[in-house]
Amino acid sequence: MQTINLAQKLSLFNEHWKPHIVGELNGQLVKLGKFKGPFTWHHHENEDELFLVVKGRFRMDFREAGKDREVWLEEGEMIIVPRGTEHRPFADEECHVLLFEPASTLNTGNVENEFTLKDLERV
Amino acid sequence: MQTINLAQKLSLFNEHWKPHIVGELNGQLVKLGKFKGPFTWHHHENEDELFLVVKGRFRMDFREAGKDREVWLEEGEMIIVPRGTEHRPFADEECHVLLFEPASTLNTGNVENEFTLKDLERV
Repeated sequence: MQTINLAQKLSLFNEHWKPHIVGELNGQLVKLGKFKGPFTWHHHENEDELFLVVKGRFRMDFREAGKDREVWLEEGEMIIVPRGTEHRPFADEECHVLLFEPASTLNTGNVENEFTLKDLERV
Repeated sequence: MQTINLAQKLSLFNEHWKPHIVGELNGQLVKLGKFKGPFTWHHHENEDELFLVVKGRFRMDFREAGKDREVWLEEGEMIIVPRGTEHRPFADEECHVLLFEPASTLNTGNVENEFTLKDLERV
């Protein structure tokens, strides 16, 4: 049982769109990610996903019932994306984000492409 | 699906040791709490608990195998307390904390006393 310092953990990797695991509890993972540019559109069939902005800001794009919508998230703000919701994060500048989601969650959900990560690293 | 601003949510209540629910996902709750003074010693039989300091700092006291230990948590730091671990948060000054834990978690775990909350409020 150790203290986890978010800034220190974030200093240990630089890749964008490659969240690293920093904790695990109750079958859920806590991850830290660095976002920059557009991610890929996707949804998660069975998992809700939490995004909390630690530094910077990013935009979450949604497609709900054919309607597009976007939400900007600033530092100290979070959003919970319910399972089944088509979404795409986008950051104009590098943004640091804490994610909370089930251990079973694949980063690109129902999509498999160059963003897909099968094995996450821990820091 | 809405943006949740932690500081704004924290401005909506003042009670110490009375976490308020700000989100729910995958059977887990996200809560915000204001800590001040000593809480009660307790453990959770079946739930791991995450504490992330949003503002200020607090100390987590542990009793493990008869040995006492304490850890100070500063802003931007978190700790995961595994199920079964006897613990007691303490804050010398008011501290704002984000908690992640299963919806089933009772704040005082195995103990029932004046700190016990049966119904949490949402903000």
